Amino acid sequence: MVGPTRFMTLHACFELGIVEALRKEAGLTAAELGAAVGAKPDAVEQLLHLLVKEGFVAQDEATGRYSLDALADVAETDLERVLTFMGMIKTGMLRQLYYLADSVSTGSVVGLKELYGFEGTMFEAAAEVADVRAAWGPLAKNETAAVYPWFFRSFDVPAGARVLDVQGGNGLGAIMTCQLKGSPGLRVTAFDRPALEAECLRNFEAQGVAEQCSFVGGDVMESLPGGFDVVLLKHFVDMHDKDEVLTILKNAHRALEPGGQIVVLAPVYPEDIRDTDDYQADFFPAYILGCVVGRGGLQKLSTYRSWLEECGFEVTKVSAKDPADIPADAIINRVVISATKRG
Amino acid sequence: MVGPTRFMTLHACFELGIVEALRKEAGLTAAELGAAVGAKPDAVEQLLHLLVKEGFVAQDEATGRYSLDALADVAETDLERVLTFMGMIKTGMLRQLYYLADSVSTGSVVGLKELYGFEGTMFEAAAEVADVRAAWGPLAKNETAAVYPWFFRSFDVPAGARVLDVQGGNGLGAIMTCQLKGSPGLRVTAFDRPALEAECLRNFEAQGVAEQCSFVGGDVMESLPGGFDVVLLKHFVDMHDKDEVLTILKNAHRALEPGGQIVVLAPVYPEDIRDTDDYQADFFPAYILGCVVGRGGLQKLSTYRSWLEECGFEVTKVSAKDPADIPADAIINRVVISATKRG
Repeated sequence: MVGPTRFMTLHACFELGIVEALRKEAGLTAAELGAAVGAKPDAVEQLLHLLVKEGFVAQDEATGRYSLDALADVAETDLERVLTFMGMIKTGMLRQLYYLADSVSTGSVVGLKELYGFEGTMFEAAAEVADVRAAWGPLAKNETAAVYPWFFRSFDVPAGARVLDVQGGNGLGAIMTCQLKGSPGLRVTAFDRPALEAECLRNFEAQGVAEQCSFVGGDVMESLPGGFDVVLLKHFVDMHDKDEVLTILKNAHRALEPGGQIVVLAPVYPEDIRDTDDYQADFFPAYILGCVVGRGGLQKLSTYRSWLEECGFEVTKVSAKDPADIPADAIINRVVISATKRG
Repeated sequence: MVGPTRFMTLHACFELGIVEALRKEAGLTAAELGAAVGAKPDAVEQLLHLLVKEGFVAQDEATGRYSLDALADVAETDLERVLTFMGMIKTGMLRQLYYLADSVSTGSVVGLKELYGFEGTMFEAAAEVADVRAAWGPLAKNETAAVYPWFFRSFDVPAGARVLDVQGGNGLGAIMTCQLKGSPGLRVTAFDRPALEAECLRNFEAQGVAEQCSFVGGDVMESLPGGFDVVLLKHFVDMHDKDEVLTILKNAHRALEPGGQIVVLAPVYPEDIRDTDDYQADFFPAYILGCVVGRGGLQKLSTYRSWLEECGFEVTKVSAKDPADIPADAIINRVVISATKRG
């Protein structure tokens, strides 16, 4: 029951600048902190109780003065990443979650409609609503920087292959394929909603890959273009329910030449959902159903494996991220699944 | 970071009726549950992951069917009390907390203004905004039933005493004083904003205590009427900052005859705020600052003790609630402090 209050009390201490003030100068009183951040000393003291309890901030018993405790040891880059994520939870989730049950009942993100009058997914809203873009933009950037290099190290692209990047709308996946998996004759096609074509082609031009890359517009639930050696499904199967994922996998199967390879990047639940070290069940259902698309959700690796087999694939390789590279605050545990088209 | 999502995932499972369906019939599939509550089976499965993780619900590995686990052992009355509290957190706090930092900066409940266009405290809003009343009403009722009998057992009222119930607006405190502390010549005065007089007098009539009880209108920050043997401060000193509490205590001091008694009912922080068994620092600052009054907060018992001494009182007795009577889900730890006017 104290989940929302714990989260916002901590966030408010950053938002008001209390932590920043203590980073600049140790040993401040509540009165000094109140003056520094424009709040009543009584309120500063109230908010800091939780941070003292958690050992983030220390309070001198004799003088009542505050200094950073555990927070003093957090590197600037780690803190920035965590604060970006917390800002997303506050702006992109806290109020939206009020409508979680409605979102589940209707299969749509009711919170976006109630807050912004927007009908659609968070991805679509980010293009139109400044508030949503501000909450998600920096996060998407962090994600891309942290995840894509590892993703592209996790599989091979044969020389001269034809690669299809499904839902590769802004062209970034195709561009990185050229940069990191380049070979003579390599051709990459980004597939997405037709509305994204112009921006995608501009990005291809700007990155000097226009000759190797092309764009095909369409709906992944209908069909995909054919004749490919590699199909990439990056970060979106978890935004779909089972029936939709099976449709996507079957369409990908048809898009591949015999022996062709599908590469799926997705977060996965642990095989035993009761694993207390894994926080994905604590976060993702509410996030995906209540804040992002109103349907879908993570699956276990074994579930994706059986769905791939059901759709005519044989799993050849699974890469999990080197735990040494995963920051302690990360909720998400992603895998890259490579599978070959059978028969 | 998973606090808001954990809270709302659990709440949505009750809100949608998933738990209720499992209470009626064990061993249901996600498809059967989805049909029962009007949601897609995929979404039901996603939400239930957390409840399985927490051991609230069990899932049969072979069949995938769900049954209540720990939730099966929760008594109906306990569940109702917890759900009332969770409903208050959802409706009365979740979205309001988005504005916590603004509320702290301005010393007002910005969330009530943003959500309902209401300027004032949650107590005032409950009188005018149906949403707020629906969230807080049942809780206030539960609180009164659980706390008041214990409160009145915690101190003595001399026979024939004159009692002042500060901020006793609806007359309930005065009525209970007559019923539980009655004696020949006992007189009780409820003091509150003049606007509450009519309702208070109606309640005195209805309960047959009109002859012993009266109402005086005024502002506790200005002054209180004089000539009393006992002054009751029930449940509101924690809604004020230090300077205001000192003003209230000084006014109460003046209202008492020499040797008169002040009785303070308030939740208190543990003496060591880092006590991990106590959740009040996790909850109350965000609740009081962000959702109720925009100022104030709990104090430690030792703080109230020193403030009482500073205002001319000597603490004679402190009663904490018998832990056997405190439900395991209770966040609040209240005390009753009795003190005598010195000199």
